[in-house]
Amino acid sequence: MEVRIVDIAIPRGYFFAGGHCGIKESGRPDLACVVFDPPAAAAGVFTQNRVTAAPVHVSRRRLPATDVRGLVVNSGNANACTGGQGLRDAEQMTATLAKHLRCDPEKTVVASTGVIGVRLPMDRITAGIVAIAKEAGTSRGHVERAAEGILTTDTVTKISWRSLKSNGSEVSVLGIAKGAAMIAPNMATMLAFVFTDARMSAESLHDLARTAADRTFNRITVEGHTSTNDTLMLFANGAAPSPDIEQPLLADAVVEVCADLAKAIAADAEGASHLIRIEVVGAASEADARRIAKTVAESALVKTAIFGADPNWGRIVSAAGYAGVPFDEENLSLYLGEYLLYAHGKPLPCDLDAASAYLRENREVTIRLQFDLGSAECSFWTCDLTYEYIRLNAEYTT
Amino acid sequence: MEVRIVDIAIPRGYFFAGGHCGIKESGRPDLACVVFDPPAAAAGVFTQNRVTAAPVHVSRRRLPATDVRGLVVNSGNANACTGGQGLRDAEQMTATLAKHLRCDPEKTVVASTGVIGVRLPMDRITAGIVAIAKEAGTSRGHVERAAEGILTTDTVTKISWRSLKSNGSEVSVLGIAKGAAMIAPNMATMLAFVFTDARMSAESLHDLARTAADRTFNRITVEGHTSTNDTLMLFANGAAPSPDIEQPLLADAVVEVCADLAKAIAADAEGASHLIRIEVVGAASEADARRIAKTVAESALVKTAIFGADPNWGRIVSAAGYAGVPFDEENLSLYLGEYLLYAHGKPLPCDLDAASAYLRENREVTIRLQFDLGSAECSFWTCDLTYEYIRLNAEYTT
Repeated sequence: MEVRIVDIAIPRGYFFAGGHCGIKESGRPDLACVVFDPPAAAAGVFTQNRVTAAPVHVSRRRLPATDVRGLVVNSGNANACTGGQGLRDAEQMTATLAKHLRCDPEKTVVASTGVIGVRLPMDRITAGIVAIAKEAGTSRGHVERAAEGILTTDTVTKISWRSLKSNGSEVSVLGIAKGAAMIAPNMATMLAFVFTDARMSAESLHDLARTAADRTFNRITVEGHTSTNDTLMLFANGAAPSPDIEQPLLADAVVEVCADLAKAIAADAEGASHLIRIEVVGAASEADARRIAKTVAESALVKTAIFGADPNWGRIVSAAGYAGVPFDEENLSLYLGEYLLYAHGKPLPCDLDAASAYLRENREVTIRLQFDLGSAECSFWTCDLTYEYIRLNAEYTT
Repeated sequence: MEVRIVDIAIPRGYFFAGGHCGIKESGRPDLACVVFDPPAAAAGVFTQNRVTAAPVHVSRRRLPATDVRGLVVNSGNANACTGGQGLRDAEQMTATLAKHLRCDPEKTVVASTGVIGVRLPMDRITAGIVAIAKEAGTSRGHVERAAEGILTTDTVTKISWRSLKSNGSEVSVLGIAKGAAMIAPNMATMLAFVFTDARMSAESLHDLARTAADRTFNRITVEGHTSTNDTLMLFANGAAPSPDIEQPLLADAVVEVCADLAKAIAADAEGASHLIRIEVVGAASEADARRIAKTVAESALVKTAIFGADPNWGRIVSAAGYAGVPFDEENLSLYLGEYLLYAHGKPLPCDLDAASAYLRENREVTIRLQFDLGSAECSFWTCDLTYEYIRLNAEYTT
C-alpha cells in the first residue's frame, strides 16, 4: 500500500464554478456551483440549532441520496428566518440549477451563508446560477473560484485534498470550506463540502459524515455560537478509473481533509491572532476528555490570556475544574508548549518569561492538560479573543 | 403586616471592620472581619469547581453551624492551588480571629479572593487580623470598610439591606459582596455574606442559601468561568429584640438582598458598559427557560452586539436555538426593550434605528424572549463584552 500526497488533487467528474451574482454589495464572489457527472452518492450533517435556515431544511430532506447531480451555494445571505418564502427560494435555487442540468430538482442540493432575516434577491441569484454553472470546469482555478464564492468574512479560501493510491486504485478527496465569520447581522456559519471520485455508498457516506464532523468540525470552537446554517456534505461519484479503494483508507482521507479545513477555520476566525490547540490526555473516558477540552477552549479568560501572551495556568486549571468532570487537583498537570507550569496539583517554579515568549512568538500554540485517570484523550482547536473580534462584532451599527 | 425599606439597616449583634494589612501592593483595603455577638447560626454554598481554594475547604467543613463567632476575609490572594500549606494558612487565619475572640477556631469561618497559586503573606495577615478585629463596630462606616476589604478590581462596594417589621418583630438583613474581577492572574470570584438579626435555624439557613444562590447568584454570568473561591454565606443571630419574624418574609428579604448584590456584580463586571437582563417567558418548564436565558446571556455574539448598540435579533434568536430546548421558530417572539423585533418566527419591519438608540442611550437594557409553550419563566443578568474587558484580561503580561 502506498499513500501519496501531491500538490493538488482534483477528483474526476466534478465541475466547479464560482463568481459574483449581486448579493454582496462589495462585488466580491457570492455564488458557487459544483456539477457532478456522473451523479454522486451524497450525505450531510447539519446544524443542531432549532432555528434552521431554509436551505438546511431543503438539503436535509434530500440526503442521503444515491444520485445527486449538483450543488449550489450562495454567500452574503443566509436565507434564515425567512419563513415559507425562504423555503420556496431555496427550492427555486435548486430548480434553476436542475433546469440547467436537465434533471429533477430533487437531485440537487443547496446551502447559504450570510445575513439572517433578509429575503434572497432571487432575480440576481437565478441569473447568476445560469451564468456561473455554464462556466464549470475542472482546473485548480475553477476550484478556487468555487471556494471563493462561499466565503463571507473569511480572509483566505480553505481548500484541502488527499490523493490515494492503493492496490491499483487511484482516487482523490478534495474539500472546500468557509468559516466562522460574524460581521453583524451575519452569523458564524461553517460550510464544508468534500468530493471524492472513489466509490462509497450513500449509507456509508452518511455514517462517515457523522464520524468526520464529530472528530473535526465539532472539535473547533470560536465562541460556541452554533449557527442556523452549519452544513457538511460529502459526495462520492466513483468516477475514478478504478474507484473501489479500501473504505477505511478512504474514510481516513476524508477525515484528514475535514481536519485540515476545521483547523483552517479556527485559524482564520475573526480577529484571531493565535490558533490554540487544547490537548487533554490521560482522562477516564473520551467523553470526559472532550468535555474538559471544550470547556477550556470556550473560556473567554483563557482566550484573552493567550492573546495577552500571559502563561496564566490558574485560568486554565480552573476552567478544567468547572467542566463537570470529577477529578482531584493532584490528578492534573499542565503544559504550555514545552513548559510544565503545574504538576499534580501544584504550580512549579518555572520560567514564566520563557512561557510568555512562547505565546508571543508563535501563532500556533498548544495547551496540554495531562491527567492520570486513564488513557482517553481529545483535542480541540480554538483561537484567542482579541480587540479585533470585538471591533468586527460590535462596531456595526444599523 | 408592614414592610419598610429605610436608608441603611444594620442588624444588631454584628461588628464590622476592614482595612489594609499588606497583601495588595497598591495599599488598598485587603482584609475584612465580622464579629458576631451573640453567636450566629450559619450556612453557606460554595463553588462547584473541582479545583477548590483552601478557605472553601475549611469553611465548607464547618458549616452549617449553630454558633459561629466570626468571619475573616482577605482579598488580593485567593489561597487556591497552594496545597497542604494553603489549608494550614486558611486554618491559621481562623485561629487568629478565634484567639482574639477567645473561642474555638472551629467557630469561625474564612474566605479569600485574588491571585491563584501564591502563598498568603501570613505574618502580615495575622498582624492585620489582630489590628483590624479590634476596631470592629456597628456604624455605616464600619460596614463600608468591611465591604471595601473584600474587593479586588470591583469599582464600587456592593452593599444591600432590607428592614422588616411584622407583628411586633423588627429585624434587618444586610449583605455585602464582591464581584467578577479578573485581572490576570486573578480569577473571577464572587463572595457574598448576608447577616440578619432575625432568628433562623442552621438547617433553614442551609436550605435558604441554596434557594437564594439558585435564584440570584446562579442567574448572573459574565463569561461563565466558575471560580475556585465562589462563596455565599448566610448568618442569623437572633439579636433583634423580637427576632421571630415570619420565616417566609425573612427568606424573601434574604433573596432580595442577594438579588441586589447579584445585579450589582453583573453591572460592575470588568469593562461592562451595559447591564443586560435576559427575560425568558412562556416556556414549558423553568429548566427550559433557565437554559435558554443562560445560553443567550453567555453568547459572545449577543454581548458584542449590545456593546455596539446593534439590535441584532438574529444573534439572539439563534443563541436561543442552540440552547438544547425543543421549540419551533413560530413559538418565539423577541423584544428589545419595548421594541418587538421578531414575532412568531418572523422578523418585523420595525424601526431598527430606534432600537439601536435604546441600546445606545440606556445602561440597563432588557432582552425578552417570549414563547407560547407554557407559563414558566426565568431571568438572567449579564453584561456586554467590550474592548475594556479584553484590555483588563489580556494586557497583563508576566
